[in-house]
Amino acid sequence: MLDGMPPARLSLSAPLRAVTLRDAFWDRYTRLVRDKVIPYQWEALNDRVPGAERSHAVENFRIAAGLAQGEFHGYVFQDSDLAKWLEAVAYRLTTDPDPALEAAADEVIALVGQAQQPDGYLNTYYTVAQPGKRWTDERRKHELYCAGHLMEAAVAYFEATGKRALLDIVCRFAEHIRGVFGPGPGQKHGYPGHQVIELALVKLFHATGDRRHLELASYFIDERGRQPHFYDAEERERGERGHQGYFEDYVYAYTQAHLPVREQEQAVGHAVRAVYLYSGMADLAMETGDESLAAACRALWANLTRRRMYVTGGIGSQDYGEDFTFDYDLPNATMYAETCASIGLVFFAQRMLALEPRGEYADVMERALYNGVLSGISLDGERFFYVNPLEVWPAACAGRHDHRHVAPVRQPWFGCACCPPNLARLVASIGRYVYSTSQDTAWVHLFAGSALAARFQDRPVRILQTTGYPREEATAFTFELDQPTRFRLALRIPGWCRHPVLRLNGAELELAALARDGYACLDRAWSATDRVELALPMPVERVRAHPGVPADAGKVALQRGPEVYCLEEADNGDRLWGLGLPPGAPLEARFDPDLLGGTGVIEGPALRRSDSGWADELYSSAAPADLPARIRAVPYRVWGNRGPGEMTVWIREPS
Amino acid sequence: MLDGMPPARLSLSAPLRAVTLRDAFWDRYTRLVRDKVIPYQWEALNDRVPGAERSHAVENFRIAAGLAQGEFHGYVFQDSDLAKWLEAVAYRLTTDPDPALEAAADEVIALVGQAQQPDGYLNTYYTVAQPGKRWTDERRKHELYCAGHLMEAAVAYFEATGKRALLDIVCRFAEHIRGVFGPGPGQKHGYPGHQVIELALVKLFHATGDRRHLELASYFIDERGRQPHFYDAEERERGERGHQGYFEDYVYAYTQAHLPVREQEQAVGHAVRAVYLYSGMADLAMETGDESLAAACRALWANLTRRRMYVTGGIGSQDYGEDFTFDYDLPNATMYAETCASIGLVFFAQRMLALEPRGEYADVMERALYNGVLSGISLDGERFFYVNPLEVWPAACAGRHDHRHVAPVRQPWFGCACCPPNLARLVASIGRYVYSTSQDTAWVHLFAGSALAARFQDRPVRILQTTGYPREEATAFTFELDQPTRFRLALRIPGWCRHPVLRLNGAELELAALARDGYACLDRAWSATDRVELALPMPVERVRAHPGVPADAGKVALQRGPEVYCLEEADNGDRLWGLGLPPGAPLEARFDPDLLGGTGVIEGPALRRSDSGWADELYSSAAPADLPARIRAVPYRVWGNRGPGEMTVWIREPS
Repeated sequence: MLDGMPPARLSLSAPLRAVTLRDAFWDRYTRLVRDKVIPYQWEALNDRVPGAERSHAVENFRIAAGLAQGEFHGYVFQDSDLAKWLEAVAYRLTTDPDPALEAAADEVIALVGQAQQPDGYLNTYYTVAQPGKRWTDERRKHELYCAGHLMEAAVAYFEATGKRALLDIVCRFAEHIRGVFGPGPGQKHGYPGHQVIELALVKLFHATGDRRHLELASYFIDERGRQPHFYDAEERERGERGHQGYFEDYVYAYTQAHLPVREQEQAVGHAVRAVYLYSGMADLAMETGDESLAAACRALWANLTRRRMYVTGGIGSQDYGEDFTFDYDLPNATMYAETCASIGLVFFAQRMLALEPRGEYADVMERALYNGVLSGISLDGERFFYVNPLEVWPAACAGRHDHRHVAPVRQPWFGCACCPPNLARLVASIGRYVYSTSQDTAWVHLFAGSALAARFQDRPVRILQTTGYPREEATAFTFELDQPTRFRLALRIPGWCRHPVLRLNGAELELAALARDGYACLDRAWSATDRVELALPMPVERVRAHPGVPADAGKVALQRGPEVYCLEEADNGDRLWGLGLPPGAPLEARFDPDLLGGTGVIEGPALRRSDSGWADELYSSAAPADLPARIRAVPYRVWGNRGPGEMTVWIREPS
Repeated sequence: MLDGMPPARLSLSAPLRAVTLRDAFWDRYTRLVRDKVIPYQWEALNDRVPGAERSHAVENFRIAAGLAQGEFHGYVFQDSDLAKWLEAVAYRLTTDPDPALEAAADEVIALVGQAQQPDGYLNTYYTVAQPGKRWTDERRKHELYCAGHLMEAAVAYFEATGKRALLDIVCRFAEHIRGVFGPGPGQKHGYPGHQVIELALVKLFHATGDRRHLELASYFIDERGRQPHFYDAEERERGERGHQGYFEDYVYAYTQAHLPVREQEQAVGHAVRAVYLYSGMADLAMETGDESLAAACRALWANLTRRRMYVTGGIGSQDYGEDFTFDYDLPNATMYAETCASIGLVFFAQRMLALEPRGEYADVMERALYNGVLSGISLDGERFFYVNPLEVWPAACAGRHDHRHVAPVRQPWFGCACCPPNLARLVASIGRYVYSTSQDTAWVHLFAGSALAARFQDRPVRILQTTGYPREEATAFTFELDQPTRFRLALRIPGWCRHPVLRLNGAELELAALARDGYACLDRAWSATDRVELALPMPVERVRAHPGVPADAGKVALQRGPEVYCLEEADNGDRLWGLGLPPGAPLEARFDPDLLGGTGVIEGPALRRSDSGWADELYSSAAPADLPARIRAVPYRVWGNRGPGEMTVWIREPS
């Protein structure tokens, strides 16, 4: 009954099939994805949702396969919607088999195969709408991006089902791509305008053992940003003068192609592309041991997470270019903070953890997961945020052009449907982010009720994690093993926790002696009677932003455990900006089983700026009056489930 | 030697020639306009400024007149730049004769006459670039706007010099326009896309006594916003489908044509167009006694000044459409607050004062003049703000697309050069805003060292105002008259002043008994020995915005007298958002003769958020530390004269 996979070195993460997740927190989301999102998306991809924007994604493949007549419809990257759905399906089949769903997936995979061209090429936009124009505009047209998502789906589906059909399709496609791109004289010395194929090729290498996939990923990474510039060459070949399109003035930085990647030190450009690139860089640094690439990853990580990241793990400070802007520019109402970007940040963090297990990577991964990622989906699983603001005034969303990208309520489905399927594939595979293993160590990165199957000393081991996280403070680890087995259990000690307590079989351990880079490392021959208990006290924390951040000056955010809280109009009335939270105000956290399907809340006294004494004037030098008030905060990820209204993460702190 | 004009009723303002201004505050600006702006603009209009954007305004007239070959260059409203310059020249010649300047003006006026078409039409864009397309796109092409500015120039030049050449030109043009627009079956039932001709036609009526000008203004006002909609009719006649252009989604409201003007209750759309329209409406309400129009003006005034105006008198809360947005939406860094809009607000206020002398109109007029208008020009008279932010972070102006319209330093000259000549014509005529007169009353709206020549009881009277305003608190009024003369002296008591003191011949008067709608009215037979002294104590005031304004929550602005102050990086270091001004901090105002050519400053203790204790993290729950600091504030109008740097009007108030 004990089963595990033999790890040769520190794994990217434990394989999904090695992790069994049964967790009060995550089950809510995995069930939503299983019961609502994946079925809904399948209907949407097949244009069977009344009233929703037409996807046409499956129909595009039918047309490309010659099975239907018609025109291509959708974005140039429409194929990726189907790919991300297939990837989510694969994860769901891994944890939760479903023959009918698998049959549907097999059928659409066969269709994808029929749409593949004799030379291995596979992209419905070019096949249907632009025959003969393949590989002429990689900067803008997403061919390699769609290829990358298909590769990720293929690897996941192969690992879930053992079926090679899609894997073979993408390997043929990869071979085609290797012919087109490379250092040879007849080849394009280029790389994708929208990254993802780099990390996908590394996955393909892992699944197949074919090093040529790794080499192609390295080529794309190494070539990026070199002079003479690929985009200029493309443009010349198209016979165009001057780069076309909206992003003219920062065409290179927008796609992180302004410098060779090893010279990049600041997170710039389109945030999703950036973190997909950085993930691929970290993958390669780990696979190849390239220290210069690892150093670039560390520099980009530091800049991104210490200068350009929201407290929710959101990234992308402006709508224009869906872009990082500059250090400490973190406006709360006009940002982008796309759900996909926080998902990509989780990918990047996971890979940095694999490169070097340090708690700061897991801290950011957790911050993004519990806040800026899960805020993307409604509690009923039917609506999604693309943009995740930290402050909402619905009147501004409706009335200000510079807020037009910010929806005050989640939307049912998007024409550009990147975020919902991205959320689905992440949540369906959340077990992969909880653990990783090396020859002699089991790393615990996240706290979630689960079991990990592993092998140490060539024996199967099962580590059981029992927790009420993030609602409760206590987590326990027990072990299923046939005989005492030596390995190291490395438990993450979250950066947000000031006073963690670790016990082994009831005896408190000296944490300082065990701590290494944010992990408490317990090295012993474990037996089936051992019990490790980790208590992570979760008082309400007042969090402040660095004094360099203008948007948060004089304000606090409330956090309990990994969860950032926010104020909503539904609980606090309107004019949230009129509320002030004095530093000494006692704040209490409790669980409200009746609110939002059961949620933590933080409550306490506050002050509310009074508008009595104001006649109809706009400015006055009369002394202001503050009235006693109470606030109630809810976790950021559950905001916006009660209709439109004001919301704010950052609260004024009169001090 | 005593000279005056016989007022029949409450005048819009005292005629410029009746006011002699010798004032320490205003002389600085009128000299700049005389010595720098008007000569510079003449060179610019003639394309003789090396390195400046080509204006071509005079050359367009030469080409239209058949005196030169070439193509039209510039905006469709390029003619208005010359018109505004001529208007400024006229005011300057009134107060300060200059034969050489007058000769140049006469010459260019002759050129304008030569560019006029045989049928009276006069617009170089259509004459040169689009012959045959006249009056086909009034919504977007500014023909009536250019006509209006020429009319204003003509009236000013006639009043200054007595010369009728330009007046005759615009009267012929007005006759042409009366043929094109009107209720008749063959006429266009339309009105300007950019207003100004309405108030200009009222001026033309005053100058000529020809009521047909008033009737045409009334037609434009009454027709505006009626159904079926003029813009739709224009569009059909052009054979277009759907309104072309960027403002598609609010094409009517953008130009205040969404409703008949008497039904408009909220200030919407392009702010400059709005206040020009409202000024014309107020003019007509006064001329015609139309109470429904007066009521609309009052409603629009109330909405604009009590919901949609910055503390600086800036208006226009967003870049998109240079537009009012909605109530209490007053962001400080992404607003528009165009110099021209504040100038237009001065026009509107002046006309509301003429309609009914109430202190609130003069208060707003003064607020705009001393702050949001004069901030538009540098202290050397060579650079100009188009957009007047209340908060500047230069990195954001450079790095955020939603700040791209905000320049952190004044610019030398604009391709769209509306603001500099608009400033020139206002400053050159500032004497017109100080006084107005009626049959029996001399109203003092502004405090400035000056003399007013008027007539009461059919006798010439000269009222002398001596003041160091706004630096000093004391203003005195004395009288030059041949014998005791009865009239009412109505002195404005500014709304910002809490404890004014009024003395007549040394004896303090009971102000409450004299106050009427913001004016202290002294009715007596004045003699040459009388002396009225008004003391307006000017302690530093902490001003707060209405609790409905999110942008200013928890913040104060500093004001002394009519002047709003701001913090600049040059005086306070960077990270101005880290400064907090506790409510009790004693603030002192003094005059610094060495700073910025001599300026008031406000100084006092404050707190600065420390960044010691911050390592490299972005968020922390460690207790924050505030260090004692000192602030120095300078008047908003002089900000940005020391190179780029941070600036803020609103300061955090930890309380």
